[in-house]
Amino acid sequence: MAPFNLKTISVTRAHHGTLHRLQHDSETLSSVATFAVFVPGAVEDFKDKFPLLLYLSGLTCTDENVAQKGCAFEHCHARRVAMVMPDTSPRGDDAADDEAWDLGKGAGFYVDASAAPWSRHYKTYSYVTKELPKVLRACDFADALDHERVSISGHSMGGHGALTLALRNPNAYASASAFAPIANPTASDCPWGQKALKAYLGSADCDEAKSHDATELVKSVEAGTFKMPILIDQGAADSFYKTQLHPERFVDAAKERGCDVTYRLHDGYDHSYFFVSTFMREHIEFHAAALGSLKI
Amino acid sequence: MAPFNLKTISVTRAHHGTLHRLQHDSETLSSVATFAVFVPGAVEDFKDKFPLLLYLSGLTCTDENVAQKGCAFEHCHARRVAMVMPDTSPRGDDAADDEAWDLGKGAGFYVDASAAPWSRHYKTYSYVTKELPKVLRACDFADALDHERVSISGHSMGGHGALTLALRNPNAYASASAFAPIANPTASDCPWGQKALKAYLGSADCDEAKSHDATELVKSVEAGTFKMPILIDQGAADSFYKTQLHPERFVDAAKERGCDVTYRLHDGYDHSYFFVSTFMREHIEFHAAALGSLKI
Repeated sequence: MAPFNLKTISVTRAHHGTLHRLQHDSETLSSVATFAVFVPGAVEDFKDKFPLLLYLSGLTCTDENVAQKGCAFEHCHARRVAMVMPDTSPRGDDAADDEAWDLGKGAGFYVDASAAPWSRHYKTYSYVTKELPKVLRACDFADALDHERVSISGHSMGGHGALTLALRNPNAYASASAFAPIANPTASDCPWGQKALKAYLGSADCDEAKSHDATELVKSVEAGTFKMPILIDQGAADSFYKTQLHPERFVDAAKERGCDVTYRLHDGYDHSYFFVSTFMREHIEFHAAALGSLKI
Repeated sequence: MAPFNLKTISVTRAHHGTLHRLQHDSETLSSVATFAVFVPGAVEDFKDKFPLLLYLSGLTCTDENVAQKGCAFEHCHARRVAMVMPDTSPRGDDAADDEAWDLGKGAGFYVDASAAPWSRHYKTYSYVTKELPKVLRACDFADALDHERVSISGHSMGGHGALTLALRNPNAYASASAFAPIANPTASDCPWGQKALKAYLGSADCDEAKSHDATELVKSVEAGTFKMPILIDQGAADSFYKTQLHPERFVDAAKERGCDVTYRLHDGYDHSYFFVSTFMREHIEFHAAALGSLKI
């Protein structure tokens, strides 16, 4: 049997590279798990391996949303960066779920659940940080990738995931970026975060919850010690901007702790992939620079 | 009442421009009709109006497929070209339909149906060539557009539509392009074309059907008289390439008649929007050059 019972769902030529969709048995999630990887095309003048950009998706999404709507691969190929797209939750038939779209399947929040019924499967923090990197080394295209050079990005719930994973693992990533992140999920004026953290961790007010809140995490950074560059984009016409996301709370706290954070608020943009895809090129260029990949 | 009973469904900021979705009462289709227009962002150094690129979608699609998956708007903005995206069929509740996905709704084939029950609503040729240009002049962003400078493109059924509309209206468009067009729909080895033309026109073998077949049309061109540049891309791993599309038949006939046609066959690419989006930039650059719009 292949390691992790890895199976290829599809291999699709796209933007001069190849989009691989794979499925495997995840020990961490006690579930089957799906993910996708875009591998840039081979180019004669590029002798290096491709560094990785991990992209964490938002509520309700799978790996397919950014693959189809993100306008990312054209720029991944141009900058010689591979993009890794995990799913947003376990998906097996026995994984707990909820009728709401913002809890359960599609809404793992990149934490390790400790409260029933979620604790059996909802370990998306450990899945992304520990198991997925091992699975990537077992893929049949693994030799094309530089598994030691990794950056992280994401949208909304996944934008927050990118920030928390970066803050909790300061040596794991070369750079972090977020599109419209849910930046302070333990706050009382973030209903999505309150609901998810209460369900998965038993409370949105406990130390464990705060250790998965990007704004709380960055407040605890010793000034000047977190060196990873951070880029955050936010749409000013995003209907969740002032009711769920609160990105400036993170930005202000990060600046106060001496972090290298760039924040841009864009007039007229909403929360959709029309916003994400607009600024995708600049995020990929930002990560390519930090990863020491190709600059044009 | 607004002209054509025009209503705005949504206005979304995207890629430094604006995506407008609109609905109106179509006299041609005896139906409500939806379409979308991407208008590039205003840029100080561009004093001109935006020329139009009409994009005709393929089977099962609406205006939303290319808007979400085409990776077009980034390049439309860069080249200062507006993109117009009509729907692929009438959609009203009383419009005839068929259980199959390749006939009826989503499958208008850009012809004017003459056979019952389709003839009442399925007039997508006249809709795109005659009514839609008038509706565009009534939109509240009409003054930003140069309605006299238009090019045409499309995918699959819509790629064929682009070629036939160009050949039937040689002075209407500056350039024509197609992604994986159904290039010879009256041929016995094109089941999609046989089925649709038989239904809409009563026969796939009549003069009327042949007058909507790009390969038959180009054969009737007087050598050297059709000056419009044509670009066609085809994926070599497209499962419909040899069973439905037959693009080389059109290309060979067009070259024989002295047309300015560029044909590219791409290893490994399929029929999906991963193929379309890969080559979208080059299509937009091709049309921008023919339209005399911005070149970078």
